[in-house]
Amino acid sequence: MKPMISISHALSQLDWKKEPYGLYAPIAYTLEAGGKRLRPTLALIACRMFEGDEQQVLPAALALEIFHNFTLLHDDVMDKALIRRGRDCVHVKWNENTAILSGDQMVIEAYKQLSQLPALYLPKVLHLFNTMATQICEGQQYDVDFESRSHVRLDEYMEMIRLKTSVLLATALQIGAYMAQADEPTQQKMYDLGIALGLAFQIQDDYLDCYGDPVSFGKAVGGDIREGKKTWLYITALNQGADRSILDSHQVEPVLQEYNRWKVPALALEQIHQLTNRALEILDTLPQNEASEALRALAQQLVQRQK
Amino acid sequence: MKPMISISHALSQLDWKKEPYGLYAPIAYTLEAGGKRLRPTLALIACRMFEGDEQQVLPAALALEIFHNFTLLHDDVMDKALIRRGRDCVHVKWNENTAILSGDQMVIEAYKQLSQLPALYLPKVLHLFNTMATQICEGQQYDVDFESRSHVRLDEYMEMIRLKTSVLLATALQIGAYMAQADEPTQQKMYDLGIALGLAFQIQDDYLDCYGDPVSFGKAVGGDIREGKKTWLYITALNQGADRSILDSHQVEPVLQEYNRWKVPALALEQIHQLTNRALEILDTLPQNEASEALRALAQQLVQRQK
Repeated sequence: MKPMISISHALSQLDWKKEPYGLYAPIAYTLEAGGKRLRPTLALIACRMFEGDEQQVLPAALALEIFHNFTLLHDDVMDKALIRRGRDCVHVKWNENTAILSGDQMVIEAYKQLSQLPALYLPKVLHLFNTMATQICEGQQYDVDFESRSHVRLDEYMEMIRLKTSVLLATALQIGAYMAQADEPTQQKMYDLGIALGLAFQIQDDYLDCYGDPVSFGKAVGGDIREGKKTWLYITALNQGADRSILDSHQVEPVLQEYNRWKVPALALEQIHQLTNRALEILDTLPQNEASEALRALAQQLVQRQK
Repeated sequence: MKPMISISHALSQLDWKKEPYGLYAPIAYTLEAGGKRLRPTLALIACRMFEGDEQQVLPAALALEIFHNFTLLHDDVMDKALIRRGRDCVHVKWNENTAILSGDQMVIEAYKQLSQLPALYLPKVLHLFNTMATQICEGQQYDVDFESRSHVRLDEYMEMIRLKTSVLLATALQIGAYMAQADEPTQQKMYDLGIALGLAFQIQDDYLDCYGDPVSFGKAVGGDIREGKKTWLYITALNQGADRSILDSHQVEPVLQEYNRWKVPALALEQIHQLTNRALEILDTLPQNEASEALRALAQQLVQRQK
């Protein structure tokens, strides 16, 4: 298969070395830190699956990646996080105001990318992008709301991660398919595939936070437990009959033991497996070619990852 | 003249009473606080000047107003301001994280308005809007940078307020004219008119902070002096030969006396007058009709305002 466009290279080609440095240097710092480049990759693979022009989709792919990184930047401010991708967060390296303003500019940079799309595709891509961006903010707000609630149902949690994580993957796939002229029902399939994959991806994240290899996961195990986050594991443990006073102790070892007692890790892996299968079943109904194989491999890799 | 569309009414018609309330209630609170609605009014007047369809321009006008209010919201967080338009700032009434996230959503809401424009106008309006939004962030960054610099030249200050204040007014006028099919040179005139008007408007703001009627201005006189801001008055006083140690004392009365000694208020009024005249001279070269009269009246009113 022809190698795909390098997202990191394309991002680095954008001009961030301009004044005012206080605005642009944190953007360059954020974007050069890497990450999986998952969202733009999904947009390009989707385009390739339906034999579209990847160069045409590139601005949308970059917009998705820039927007994703903006959400991480502002979330880190709100969470008072210290480290992102092994480096100081922007609000640590610079300060909070810099993180707010540079994040704002990243949103605008994402829309600047979109404005480079062919006019034919612009209205719909802009609409899809806006809908996705709104849902991510809504998901973030629900996530915040859940922190101060004593009880969160599993369906509420799933809806929150659908908004906060899945719609971005789904929209990436839909935009790629749409710009390659896939029809509406096919775009919808790609979107649904992305939703299932995103849910699996997020539950895998929750799982890795407890059971990942601390070295490859890049952070200490049990961070969610210490912060008392209502993750898929926490809610499922409660649903299974776990002792709430243990779960709310925020002590890693006792909580992990309680999870194990109620078979929560096995249930999580089963849920991840089911969701991945749902995504792959949708994929089976779509054109089979090198790009769909790449998407299949990517889906399997995402839920087998250790970080 | 047929009454113009009510911007406040149009903003209140948007659905803000939806979940998650923590995201949307602060947006409703921000937008219902009023203000001059200057930017959308300029877009609609410009459209009317060239006999365009105001209803078509309305989404762009709302986008400009929503974006402007977003900048105030995030600026208030960064400045740790307490009061905006006589009410608690969002980060005071709620908290800082709410102000960050709701502000982010306001940017997206602005783009959602743009996506409702006729496809024919979308690419250029999106481009103009993005350019403007970028310049506002750049202006805000320069404003921040100036705080920690010992000296700021008047030309640097003028460039900062051009970015932070003027381009939004200029872009509002250009978008209105463009969507009413005014030709490029005419759009440029409208833009230039907006730049001159915006500079006059900002220097008037600096002036009112020192010499406004505290009752009608809605805040105590001398806030900029107490904060040690490098305003037009401060920089001009230095250029005229004022005693820097007095200006840097941050004491309102001595600084005002030093300003008076070096005739700074008269120089400010002269500068405001010159800039307003520049705007009105451009207006004289454009079609004369009820809308251009309204724009003339608005320009004069802006620089005679006491708040």
